[in-house]
Amino acid sequence: MTDAAGTHRVLTFVCADRPGIVHALSGALVDAGGNITESQQFSSEDTGRFFIRLQVEADATAERLAAHLDPVARRFEAEWRIDVVGRPMRTLVLVSTAGHCLNDLLFRRRSGQLPIEIPLVLGNHRDLEGLADFYGVPFEARAVTSPETKRAFEQRVLAAVDELGIELVVLARYMQILSPELCERLAGRAINIHHSFLPGFKGANPYRQAHARGVKLIGATAHFVTADLDEGPIIEQEVVRVDHASSARELVSIGQDQESRTLSRAVRWFAEHRVLQDGARTIIFR
Amino acid sequence: MTDAAGTHRVLTFVCADRPGIVHALSGALVDAGGNITESQQFSSEDTGRFFIRLQVEADATAERLAAHLDPVARRFEAEWRIDVVGRPMRTLVLVSTAGHCLNDLLFRRRSGQLPIEIPLVLGNHRDLEGLADFYGVPFEARAVTSPETKRAFEQRVLAAVDELGIELVVLARYMQILSPELCERLAGRAINIHHSFLPGFKGANPYRQAHARGVKLIGATAHFVTADLDEGPIIEQEVVRVDHASSARELVSIGQDQESRTLSRAVRWFAEHRVLQDGARTIIFR
Amino acid sequence: MTDAAGTHRVLTFVCADRPGIVHALSGALVDAGGNITESQQFSSEDTGRFFIRLQVEADATAERLAAHLDPVARRFEAEWRIDVVGRPMRTLVLVSTAGHCLNDLLFRRRSGQLPIEIPLVLGNHRDLEGLADFYGVPFEARAVTSPETKRAFEQRVLAAVDELGIELVVLARYMQILSPELCERLAGRAINIHHSFLPGFKGANPYRQAHARGVKLIGATAHFVTADLDEGPIIEQEVVRVDHASSARELVSIGQDQESRTLSRAVRWFAEHRVLQDGARTIIFR
Amino acid sequence: MTDAAGTHRVLTFVCADRPGIVHALSGALVDAGGNITESQQFSSEDTGRFFIRLQVEADATAERLAAHLDPVARRFEAEWRIDVVGRPMRTLVLVSTAGHCLNDLLFRRRSGQLPIEIPLVLGNHRDLEGLADFYGVPFEARAVTSPETKRAFEQRVLAAVDELGIELVVLARYMQILSPELCERLAGRAINIHHSFLPGFKGANPYRQAHARGVKLIGATAHFVTADLDEGPIIEQEVVRVDHASSARELVSIGQDQESRTLSRAVRWFAEHRVLQDGARTIIFR
Repeated sequence: MTDAAGTHRVLTFVCADRPGIVHALSGALVDAGGNITESQQFSSEDTGRFFIRLQVEADATAERLAAHLDPVARRFEAEWRIDVVGRPMRTLVLVSTAGHCLNDLLFRRRSGQLPIEIPLVLGNHRDLEGLADFYGVPFEARAVTSPETKRAFEQRVLAAVDELGIELVVLARYMQILSPELCERLAGRAINIHHSFLPGFKGANPYRQAHARGVKLIGATAHFVTADLDEGPIIEQEVVRVDHASSARELVSIGQDQESRTLSRAVRWFAEHRVLQDGARTIIFR
Repeated sequence: MTDAAGTHRVLTFVCADRPGIVHALSGALVDAGGNITESQQFSSEDTGRFFIRLQVEADATAERLAAHLDPVARRFEAEWRIDVVGRPMRTLVLVSTAGHCLNDLLFRRRSGQLPIEIPLVLGNHRDLEGLADFYGVPFEARAVTSPETKRAFEQRVLAAVDELGIELVVLARYMQILSPELCERLAGRAINIHHSFLPGFKGANPYRQAHARGVKLIGATAHFVTADLDEGPIIEQEVVRVDHASSARELVSIGQDQESRTLSRAVRWFAEHRVLQDGARTIIFR
Repeated sequence: MTDAAGTHRVLTFVCADRPGIVHALSGALVDAGGNITESQQFSSEDTGRFFIRLQVEADATAERLAAHLDPVARRFEAEWRIDVVGRPMRTLVLVSTAGHCLNDLLFRRRSGQLPIEIPLVLGNHRDLEGLADFYGVPFEARAVTSPETKRAFEQRVLAAVDELGIELVVLARYMQILSPELCERLAGRAINIHHSFLPGFKGANPYRQAHARGVKLIGATAHFVTADLDEGPIIEQEVVRVDHASSARELVSIGQDQESRTLSRAVRWFAEHRVLQDGARTIIFR
Repeated sequence: MTDAAGTHRVLTFVCADRPGIVHALSGALVDAGGNITESQQFSSEDTGRFFIRLQVEADATAERLAAHLDPVARRFEAEWRIDVVGRPMRTLVLVSTAGHCLNDLLFRRRSGQLPIEIPLVLGNHRDLEGLADFYGVPFEARAVTSPETKRAFEQRVLAAVDELGIELVVLARYMQILSPELCERLAGRAINIHHSFLPGFKGANPYRQAHARGVKLIGATAHFVTADLDEGPIIEQEVVRVDHASSARELVSIGQDQESRTLSRAVRWFAEHRVLQDGARTIIFR
């Protein structure tokens, strides 16, 4: 997994669609001594964009690969990125008091199911400090009780992102609305999880509303954070069946399970460079 | 399945919850020579209502059972109903041009999976006449192109309900909004199917909206018809996973599958007296 | 939740099916001042047995309820049990080295989703001691490396069951086969989890076999422990979709998730007295 | 959809994995004026084979494309195939008496969800003639009651395959075992559907066995036909949840639904050239 010759690398490449991209890319890789072991490609009819994710086995160093790929990227005016497969992505987790999502992330990371490392968990409450301690992850709490403390919290987030080389911010049931400025700064690299229902419910206590309406399914949605609360590009969704005997309290418990699973899946895909944005939609190369 | 002594019967009984209901009911059944073979019960904390569905094997005639149950029902001011298990429910199906739901209902009915009989399919287009013919079901079309023709269509519905002894009206992709008067007249015995999404989309062409937003799940909801369009008590819901490569057209095709299955399931449960209303919610005794 | 008047209780009652059981039971409960708030009943055509699970709200003490129910139980020669709703069931967990199931049980217990208490985790390895410590649960390890140490381990299990008042033994990926004698002693109160596939695979490394055969679904089965390895009455099953790109290693990771969820669900149902045995089958009153 | 310049084509290409395949293929396509609009690729670690499925938009004729691709195919000793996207695949359907799978195939084909045409339905019973008639599909019945009539039936299958240009044979609940010779002749182009269970059951009446064992899930598996009955490479699987109250008869009904859906999905993928064989496994490019 070290960034040397002979490693497996993942390449994402996004540009306006036109003939010859695959040929140019594969040519550059052949020239650099690389072999494509996995490939997923998609052309968006909505936006005319071309998306590709390649896994490449190469004897070449990252520099040598980049030297071959750079002219291709410039020719097609592409956004591209190359990384070592399995390199842990540096992840900042924001939490409040509910621990189900954090527990799931930490357990999966330790058992090798999530290619992330977590240099910091930042909470607006201290409740989850013990959980972070158990997994040997630094924890820091800062109360958010006023516009000033909220601003301070968000500045701490941005400082942590810079100082710790954070590549992904996960809102693991962090129950505060981020300011538009922070959303802007974290665009495309912050993931939130929230519950979802058929039909959707606005306002406070959606589980109570869902219960009142007698929904038969409840769900969870993981999405990119945008200033439009609960409305960013969707990364993953899941639902589970409930019935008339499920109390509003049980709906909450069932919902937590889904939130954990759905968030962990979205984080894994992001960390594996499987999530690309296409306007308001996401391309998921599973 | 004939309504004579020795048959299996299904009893539903709904009243305000208080002690002694089960004891009184089971006592009346024992006295009438009946044996309870299946029982499902629910007390709603929301409305304080008690719901029970019993299957009873009895040597008694329907009259004799009713004579024993009637005093219990009066004592608890219950709404109740007794029927022969498996008796086909008389069902009127309303359609427009899309045949997937009608095809599913007709095929399942013929293969013995749906305890309904269909004395009439009524459409505002002729497109599905051949399908009804193949299954030997009467079909009638009346164009709906103006307020007058709409009124005439709805009067035909009500006349059919009366003349044909209709117990259930199924809107199998009938693409017209029913008038509030007709909704009122059919309250609690008309079922509609519509597509659903996470999040929900209002207005025209929801599949295109769902595609634009990049939803990962699409669903279908079967519900009782109310004047509030697409908002009646939910009977059944189902979702299926889609991805970025699903075009708006494919979403439609996937959605049709779900609509068929979800509607047929709701119809079967209703015909088996498994669906009871509890205010804005449904109790489903599966 | 204390065992006093006014509490919610759960009653299970199993006997040969014949008329009058519900009437007799509900009569005894009415006499004792109890109100049935939930009821699920099933008559097995296979074995002729009658199964009922009732939740009862009663001002009466446990003694008073028992005094009223006892004559009914004797009349119908029933096996029956009454318990306080939500009372934590005393549970012994057996583990080896894999922590995913134990982690799930401990996290759910602490977050109030599992009505169990765990006076002891017993392992044949020390690997999971830290996890148990974090949740404040006693942990004990005893190596199993020979027939003698295996016998000693099993005697420790039986001693713990007696001394600690254990009602349920959970094999949370405990990778040793229990002796027929221990299976016999724990019959009906020990739950195991194992992976399942379509089709089934016998012998070592089923994930590798499943991968070789190209299965599209993998699953997990929670079942009662019997001397017939992996063949006891099934309590719960779950599957998840996989594809050709899933390596044998990924199948293992996906399978662990399912094992955790499936086992926790089976344990919850058992602890809530929702699992009754009917010969080789289980009745699950969800 | 006509096979002329400007059409969308699908290309599958399978060979031993080595560097340069994608580059060579994409180069040939660029030279022929084609643009890759969709691409899925997989390298099998088990067999060392490389699999790719491309969709290509090209102004070139099929001949011109083939002329460019042929040298690449020879260089890599590949098995390859090019087809027009959406061209209906010529499909022979074998049936006995159960109509659920045939009904599903015919309905989906007519509603544009299945890119197949069915020049013949061949049964060993006449029961499904009316269904085939309704959809305007030729039907032929030949009783299979002895080794001789079985041989005659199979010769009719082979004759139909030749005379009608059949590309795919679907066993839509055709309840006869095919001879090893016929299996051999149809290898890789005949799909069967059968029910599946966790755990698996051998021998007659698996639904009764599944009921006796109290399974909580039942499933269906679509697979390529091989001489080893019910054991060919798996194309698609699906399961559904059942419970203790499901009678053996209900299991059958639930199972039929799954069989229909699972078979139709497998047929669609095959007709869209999404199913490639990799030894005993299938690669499914969904």
